[in-house]
Amino acid sequence: MGSKLEELAPLFYPRSLALIGASSDDSKFGGRFLRSVLRFGFKGELYLVNPRESEILGMRTYPSILDVPHEVDLAGIAVPAKAVPQVLEECLAKGVKGAEIITSGFGETGTEDGRELQERIREIAKRGIRVIGPNCFGVYSPAGTLTVLPGGDFSRESGPVGFTSQSGVFLRRFPKRAEGLGIRFSKAIGYGNAVDINEADLYEYLAEDLETRVIASYMEGAREARRFFEVLRRTTPTKPVILWKGGLTAAGARAAASHTGTLAGEEAIWEAVFRQTGATRVTGLDELMDAVLVFLHLPSSCGPRVAIVGGGGGTSVGAADACERAGLRTPPLAPELQKRLAASLAPVGTSTVNPVDVGTPFPAVNQLRATLDILIEAPNVDTIILDAISVYAGFNGEDTPEVAQAVVDIRKSTSKPIVAVLPVEATGVDDLPAEAKRRRTCDYYHANGIPVFLTLERAVSAVAKGVRYRQWVSAHGGDA
Amino acid sequence: MGSKLEELAPLFYPRSLALIGASSDDSKFGGRFLRSVLRFGFKGELYLVNPRESEILGMRTYPSILDVPHEVDLAGIAVPAKAVPQVLEECLAKGVKGAEIITSGFGETGTEDGRELQERIREIAKRGIRVIGPNCFGVYSPAGTLTVLPGGDFSRESGPVGFTSQSGVFLRRFPKRAEGLGIRFSKAIGYGNAVDINEADLYEYLAEDLETRVIASYMEGAREARRFFEVLRRTTPTKPVILWKGGLTAAGARAAASHTGTLAGEEAIWEAVFRQTGATRVTGLDELMDAVLVFLHLPSSCGPRVAIVGGGGGTSVGAADACERAGLRTPPLAPELQKRLAASLAPVGTSTVNPVDVGTPFPAVNQLRATLDILIEAPNVDTIILDAISVYAGFNGEDTPEVAQAVVDIRKSTSKPIVAVLPVEATGVDDLPAEAKRRRTCDYYHANGIPVFLTLERAVSAVAKGVRYRQWVSAHGGDA
Repeated sequence: MGSKLEELAPLFYPRSLALIGASSDDSKFGGRFLRSVLRFGFKGELYLVNPRESEILGMRTYPSILDVPHEVDLAGIAVPAKAVPQVLEECLAKGVKGAEIITSGFGETGTEDGRELQERIREIAKRGIRVIGPNCFGVYSPAGTLTVLPGGDFSRESGPVGFTSQSGVFLRRFPKRAEGLGIRFSKAIGYGNAVDINEADLYEYLAEDLETRVIASYMEGAREARRFFEVLRRTTPTKPVILWKGGLTAAGARAAASHTGTLAGEEAIWEAVFRQTGATRVTGLDELMDAVLVFLHLPSSCGPRVAIVGGGGGTSVGAADACERAGLRTPPLAPELQKRLAASLAPVGTSTVNPVDVGTPFPAVNQLRATLDILIEAPNVDTIILDAISVYAGFNGEDTPEVAQAVVDIRKSTSKPIVAVLPVEATGVDDLPAEAKRRRTCDYYHANGIPVFLTLERAVSAVAKGVRYRQWVSAHGGDA
Repeated sequence: MGSKLEELAPLFYPRSLALIGASSDDSKFGGRFLRSVLRFGFKGELYLVNPRESEILGMRTYPSILDVPHEVDLAGIAVPAKAVPQVLEECLAKGVKGAEIITSGFGETGTEDGRELQERIREIAKRGIRVIGPNCFGVYSPAGTLTVLPGGDFSRESGPVGFTSQSGVFLRRFPKRAEGLGIRFSKAIGYGNAVDINEADLYEYLAEDLETRVIASYMEGAREARRFFEVLRRTTPTKPVILWKGGLTAAGARAAASHTGTLAGEEAIWEAVFRQTGATRVTGLDELMDAVLVFLHLPSSCGPRVAIVGGGGGTSVGAADACERAGLRTPPLAPELQKRLAASLAPVGTSTVNPVDVGTPFPAVNQLRATLDILIEAPNVDTIILDAISVYAGFNGEDTPEVAQAVVDIRKSTSKPIVAVLPVEATGVDDLPAEAKRRRTCDYYHANGIPVFLTLERAVSAVAKGVRYRQWVSAHGGDA
C-alpha cells in the first residue's frame, strides 16, 4: 500500500463516522447530511453530535465529539462557520483522523472574517487532522459505504471512475447523470476551498488507488500549481485524466473568485499544461461524461480510422464531416470489401465506400450482421460507429431484440471497438415509451462494452479524445 | 401573391393528388407512401395508379394517370427508376402541374444509366411540369394536408418554420425531434437530386411564403450556386436562415458525391457565403434545432449581454466561461441591484455579481421571483438564462407548479427574453418519471415563449447565433 493510500484511508473507508451538527431538522445541512448517510447505508459506527439535542431520529446524540466514548475515524462537520474552528480543535484533541467540512462562509466570501476563519482551520489541520473542504459536499466512496450530503440515492456499486470536483453541484450532477450510462465510481470528492487536502493530494491518492482506472475532474484552480502539474504528469501515462478547468475566460475567472476564492489562472498556461501532461481537456459536463465512456470502453490500441454505418445518405455526409473536423479519418474500404458489402445491401439508396449507408435506419438483422462482419475484417478500420441505427424493434424489456443482440454478439467476437449513437428521436411527453426503449438499449450496450452517445458529433469528439490520449501515451512511453 | 407562390402552389396545396406506384404491399415505397398519406389525412382528391392492381385497400386504382377522369395537381411517383420517364411523360400529357419523385437510382448512383435517366427527367420537366426529386421524400405541408413518405405521424399543426433538406433522413428526424419542443412547420421539403426545383427555387418560395418566419436547411451543394447566393442575400434581411452545409470537409464531400451526386464546394467559399449573407451556420441537427428555437422565441432587439441564474458556484464559473467563448458577455450587475439581490438570498453560498448564484438548484418561489424581478430591471442585461433551476416540484401534469408559473408570469410581464436550461439529470430506465416532468415543463415553457435547451453550452451557443444575426441585420439595414 502506497503512503497516500494509507494516509487518506480514514477519509475514504472510515470505520466510524461522527456527524457534528447532525439535526432532526431537514431544512438544515446537518439534517440533510444525516438523512443521506442513513439512506445510503453507512456500515461503520455512526455517532451524532449536537449540543442542543440528546436524541435525533431515535439515535443517541452526544453534546461534543469529546463525549463519544469510541474511536472516530472521520468527522462530517455541518455546524455554523464561526463554530467550526472550535469543533475541529476538539476533533484533533479526540484523535479523529479526518474531517470533511460541509459548512460555507470562509475564504469564498471574500470577507476578512471568512479568510481569518479559513486560516484558523488550516492551522489546526496542520497539527494532525486531514481536512476536506470547507465549503464542500465531502466524499462519496461506495466501497466505504460513505456518501456525500446530496448523495443518499447514489449507486451503492463501486466502479473504475475517480471524480474530483471543486464544486458541489457537479458532485451530484455528474454521478446522477452518469448512472444510467453504466458509469460507476471508485470515489467522488467535493473538496471546495481545499484548505488542507487539495487537487494534488487527491490526484496522488487516485493515481495509487487500485479501484480507480480513469480520473475525471472539475476544478477552478490548483492551490499548489507546480506540485499539481508534477502529479498530473506522473499520473497520465498510466491512468487517463479528463479535466474540466473552469474559470479560464476572464468572466469565468471572476465567477471562480467569488465561488471558491480561487485564482483561476490563464488560458495560455493551462493550454501548456494540457499539452505537456497528456490530460484530456473538456469544457462541460456532458463532454466530460462522453470522454469517460470512451476511456472505459475503448481498448488502448485505438487508432484514428473509423468506419461509420448509417441509414441515409445525409447522415453519411454529416458523419464524414464531423470525423474530419474532430481529427478522425474515414478511409474508403478496399474494393474487395466494398464488393462484398454491395452484395448484402440494396442496389440503390446505399453506399459501400465509408461512411457505409445501409439505406435505412432500420436494417434487417442479416444485413446489419453482414455489414459489421465485413467492417471487422477491414484492416484500415480501427473503430466502428453505428450512427442512429435503430435496434429498438421488439425492445420491450423482456427479451433482447435480435438486432441489438447481433451487434453485441459481434462486439464480443472481436477486439475492434463498436460505438453506438442512439439519439433521442422524439421529445414529447407522449414519446416516453420510445425513450424507455432507448434507455434499455443503452443499458444493454453499456453492459456489453459498447459506449452510447446522444449524437454523432459527440461520439466522434469523444473517440477523438481517446485516440489523442493513446497517441500521447505511446509518444511518451507510457503503458495505459 | 408573388409569382413563386403561384407557380409552386400545386406542390404545397394540391387540390388533388395521384400516387403512381401506389401499392398494398407495405414493404414497397409506394405502399408505405400511400399509408402515410392516408394516416396523415390528405383532404383533397386522392387517386391511386398502378397497372397491376385494380383496387388497393378498397380504393379504386387506375392503370395509368391518363385514365384518371379528373384534374390532378400533384403526382407522387414511386415506380422503379426505369419506368419514371414514361410515367412523368404521361403526367405532362395529362396536365399534372407538379410531381414529387420518390424513386432512387438516378444521378446519385454515379452510373451512366442513372445519369441518363436523370437527364430525361430534366428534359421532360422543362416542357411544363415542376418536379421535386428524384431520390427524395417530397413535401410536408400541414396546411395542405400533405405529408412526406415517412411522415404519417407528423403534426397536423402548421407553424412558422420552413425546412428544406437534400437528405430524406433529416426530413423525418428534424420534424420528429422538434415536435416535442413546440416547433411547427409551414413546409418541410426533401428534394434529393434537385433535377428541376432546387435550393434557389425553394428559398424564393419560402421567402415569399407568409406562413414561414424562419428558414432552416440541410444541403450538400447548390445546383445554381450564383443564383442561390443571390436569393440567400435577398432573404436573410427579413427572414433568418439557418444552414447546415454538409460535405464541407474532404471526407464529407466524397460522401456527398455518392449520396446526391453533388459537388459540395469548398469550405473557404462557403465561409464567405455565410459572412456575406448573414445566414447562420450550423454543423449538426441539434445545433440547427437550437438555433430555430432562438429565432422563434427571442425578440429582434436581442443584445449580447446575458445574466445567468444558477444554483451552485461551479455552474456559475462554467456558465461565464461558456458565454465568453460563445461571444456573449456577463457584465457585473450594478452595486445597487446587487445589494437588493443580496437581501433576498442566503448570506453564504450565493453570489450576486453575475452569474447570479442563488445557492441551490431548488430556490424557493419568492427567492426566484425576487431574483428575476431585479434582473429584468438591470439595464445592462439583454437576456436572462435560467441554468438548471429546478421547477419540477409538484409538476405532475395536472396543476402547474408555482415555481414554473412564477417564471412564466415574469416572462409575460416583460419584453426581456428568458431562456431556460433543463438538462436530463438522470439517464436510467427507472428515472423516466423525472424525464416526464422535464418534458412537461418544456411544453409549458415553450407554450409561453421561453425556449429550453439541454445544456448551458447549447443555450449560449444558440443565443449567440441570434445575437450575431441581429447585429448583421442592423449593420446591413434589414428589418428582421
